Amino acid sequence: MADTSVAPPRSLRKGTAKLEAVELAEFLLRPDPQDPRLTSRVEGVDEQGRPVETAVVTERPLTLYLNRQEIVTMMTIGDYPDYLAVGYLLNQNMLRPDDEIEGVDYDEELDVVVVRTRRETNYEEKLKKKIRTSGCAQGTVFGDLMERFDEVALSQGARLHTSWLYALTRKINTAPSLYLEAGAIHGCVLCQGERPLLYMEDVGRHNAVDKIAGYMLLHGLTPDDKIFYTTGRLTSEMVIKTVQMGIPILVSRSGFTAWGVDLARQAGLTLIGRAKGRRFIALSGAERIVYDAEHRDEEEAPRHGRKGARDDA
Amino acid sequence: MADTSVAPPRSLRKGTAKLEAVELAEFLLRPDPQDPRLTSRVEGVDEQGRPVETAVVTERPLTLYLNRQEIVTMMTIGDYPDYLAVGYLLNQNMLRPDDEIEGVDYDEELDVVVVRTRRETNYEEKLKKKIRTSGCAQGTVFGDLMERFDEVALSQGARLHTSWLYALTRKINTAPSLYLEAGAIHGCVLCQGERPLLYMEDVGRHNAVDKIAGYMLLHGLTPDDKIFYTTGRLTSEMVIKTVQMGIPILVSRSGFTAWGVDLARQAGLTLIGRAKGRRFIALSGAERIVYDAEHRDEEEAPRHGRKGARDDA
Repeated sequence: MADTSVAPPRSLRKGTAKLEAVELAEFLLRPDPQDPRLTSRVEGVDEQGRPVETAVVTERPLTLYLNRQEIVTMMTIGDYPDYLAVGYLLNQNMLRPDDEIEGVDYDEELDVVVVRTRRETNYEEKLKKKIRTSGCAQGTVFGDLMERFDEVALSQGARLHTSWLYALTRKINTAPSLYLEAGAIHGCVLCQGERPLLYMEDVGRHNAVDKIAGYMLLHGLTPDDKIFYTTGRLTSEMVIKTVQMGIPILVSRSGFTAWGVDLARQAGLTLIGRAKGRRFIALSGAERIVYDAEHRDEEEAPRHGRKGARDDA
Repeated sequence: MADTSVAPPRSLRKGTAKLEAVELAEFLLRPDPQDPRLTSRVEGVDEQGRPVETAVVTERPLTLYLNRQEIVTMMTIGDYPDYLAVGYLLNQNMLRPDDEIEGVDYDEELDVVVVRTRRETNYEEKLKKKIRTSGCAQGTVFGDLMERFDEVALSQGARLHTSWLYALTRKINTAPSLYLEAGAIHGCVLCQGERPLLYMEDVGRHNAVDKIAGYMLLHGLTPDDKIFYTTGRLTSEMVIKTVQMGIPILVSRSGFTAWGVDLARQAGLTLIGRAKGRRFIALSGAERIVYDAEHRDEEEAPRHGRKGARDDA
């Protein structure tokens, strides 16, 4: 598992600075709810008019340049601008896996990140496409997203043991996170077996996905033996991004959309939703599931559950 | 309250066809989970490999034209293409409240909706702006959204009684909905006092908001005495849209982002989050709240709660 043994670069250490338990040490990268840049304290009143103070997640603009070309301004919590920038370009097909990245420069004062590649990319064509689809409720560029979808062949040998799934959801739900600290944030986790490797959060689910994609490219993580966990719904876009990243298994505690299921079946993606406690539903690729967990029929104790809310994302 | 007594046009009747209780009759418009176009049955397996069948929400593309100009292709459940089209153009400032709409034509076979106005609009300039912001995780055009933000003056006289809030959340959570039927969907509700008027759902929260904006314009509903309820997070974008619509009070069962709070305070919007049972937090505009509900300190019985999940959107 050489691809998971990379030492996090300096910029990432803060993310893994507060490991208390052995299980937390399994995360190569996880949220740092103590990072003062990521949340702020805000004063308000409660349901009886009593003054209260609460933590809210910060969001700041980040303007992305590919070489000399301004591409987009994103709202992000701002913890990993380098991974976000590279992952965004990759998932939009504006960067090819074989593109040579000569550097990623982040200017914290200007909220600007610049990705420098050897060859100039065909951004102009991409920007044209954006015009036609930018109002899409999922907030990304559909024409681009679909571009590589049909070419991808997902690993047939990949497996998901139900015992892994239950261990993963417990570890993810109990790990310190901005969600537990302030709520109102999305989370995605790249996993291998029963080990959660990369836990990314952001105000937009897309950002969390892109940060993982950027990390995978820059650190050479291979997708074939990975499992992608998301807190959000299994929409068409989430399925397309997972397939594009080459990850054969997508898991969510939230629900499905019909088109997401159709696309997962087209691509042979294992699609698991409503994964809560020891329950889940698989609507595609069930042949990768190994039912090795001993089973009780009742729900797991709620201490591992999330706050009550909708299956949204 | 002349503005709430409009009889829903023929196309809306199905949405209010199955009223069982007096309270359900309060909805001018609410989801119709029985509409066969909105969900489909899908076969899969459960956590023990047993075959299961489940309902999932459908999403279909809808391409919007403003006069002869193709504007955008949206993914939507497709229940109210006319309201969605008009509301989208309005919330993107591509349509002005004083624009004369000569017609809205929907072609169900082509998945195309055309909004015809008397004067031609400055869409080209708008489309230019899109290029720079279309990657925004919130999936809309930021430059446009901010355009009218500072001009809006929200009603100072508007009030929110805590008794209304508790009645509204109970009515909304117990009304038949696609969420209760299939999950994985966003909901927004336009309310007046303790009456929920318009309950819209869609795969994208933006669509649900836009459908309400479109209905308000086409039926002449005024915003000053309204309350906007959303299942999603109180992000900057949600705050901007609510302010643009002129609605002085925004309520969510989900959480806050820091920029959302900043913008709400700038605009004098009453911003209430984490509204569950008889608890909530107000982080802006608390002066509009009237604390008239008798109070117990414990949470309300969970039967009115949502499924466990994240405060996402």
